[in-house]
Amino acid sequence: MSVYTDTISFRTKGNTDVIDITPRLDELLQKSGMREGFVVIHAVGSTGAVTTCEYEPGLVRDFKDIFDKLIPPGHYSHNETWGDANGHSHLRASLVGPSITVTFNNKRLLLGTWQQVVFIDFDTRSRQREVAVQFVGEQ
Amino acid sequence: MSVYTDTISFRTKGNTDVIDITPRLDELLQKSGMREGFVVIHAVGSTGAVTTCEYEPGLVRDFKDIFDKLIPPGHYSHNETWGDANGHSHLRASLVGPSITVTFNNKRLLLGTWQQVVFIDFDTRSRQREVAVQFVGEQ
Amino acid sequence: MSVYTDTISFRTKGNTDVIDITPRLDELLQKSGMREGFVVIHAVGSTGAVTTCEYEPGLVRDFKDIFDKLIPPGHYSHNETWGDANGHSHLRASLVGPSITVTFNNKRLLLGTWQQVVFIDFDTRSRQREVAVQFVGEQ
Repeated sequence: MSVYTDTISFRTKGNTDVIDITPRLDELLQKSGMREGFVVIHAVGSTGAVTTCEYEPGLVRDFKDIFDKLIPPGHYSHNETWGDANGHSHLRASLVGPSITVTFNNKRLLLGTWQQVVFIDFDTRSRQREVAVQFVGEQ
Repeated sequence: MSVYTDTISFRTKGNTDVIDITPRLDELLQKSGMREGFVVIHAVGSTGAVTTCEYEPGLVRDFKDIFDKLIPPGHYSHNETWGDANGHSHLRASLVGPSITVTFNNKRLLLGTWQQVVFIDFDTRSRQREVAVQFVGEQ
Repeated sequence: MSVYTDTISFRTKGNTDVIDITPRLDELLQKSGMREGFVVIHAVGSTGAVTTCEYEPGLVRDFKDIFDKLIPPGHYSHNETWGDANGHSHLRASLVGPSITVTFNNKRLLLGTWQQVVFIDFDTRSRQREVAVQFVGEQ
């Protein structure tokens, strides 16, 4: 077994910006040359999260709406600590979670047809983001 | 180290149907012959999720109730995209998350006594489901 | 590649007690002697969860508040099953999730500057807790 570590970087708009990173993962999987194994995907930073969803514009809007309802922007103790306004961003990111692990076989990620790997930026502003990616498996 | 990939398949009823897959994982762990390592478990499809819980009928009812409260069925933009009615199913699945990873040692999953690995089907109908399972470890 | 399994143990206060376990993970990473790989971290037991956050007192208070709002203590079917009062603890733990996976490279966890790995004890009382930790990688 071998290991291949890389980083996916991109610019986000913030405010529950949902980014489909599946094509980048597919590219890196082919680059790794591995046939069978798994990939660990985790957000670097505490206001972003990684999960899967059907990536289509309607659902992306629904994400914004449901998080605005469940954990709305507003007063949080965190905001007093630093004088910033992203307490809700932190809570949302911790709830969704920073990492997922997806297996692959025959050089193909074992995802559903309508299932993409997404990074969600919950922060309140545009940011340059990094997602750590590690493929572990066999040729 | 070696890798063993398999799939667990089953039929669900949908609507926050909670399925205990721990016995199937235990069987596959014995079949793999591995002593120490970990297993990646991830839902194939974007309206199912994997997590752990104490699997007992009361808590299974509580899951249905809390998700009906937090992310109720109803109007979502996703529903307009496809003309279906499972926007809430997608949001619930992305929030819980598609994957977990559990370690094992001495051929035993390192879970608590009252902790089972469950697949939750949030879709609105009965479906045939697949969970991708990969054991990585040493004999 | 090799594997190193260990356990992190500590006492919690319960009631959404957030424990920063990053320093313990760093110690074990150095002890493992590995350079490149990943660490699986998962909660043993069904009322604790693992995620990442910026570990600072304001945000810790916000965690308690948001979970008291989203999944308040009170009546749950689970409580009738066992005659206990921690139905909300179970639901919160399953929602956040039991496990995360974090990669490392050059003997350093690939976390953000303000991102710590935390265990959250959602149970209603002080408990002795175990988090299973497994490092997999190369020297």
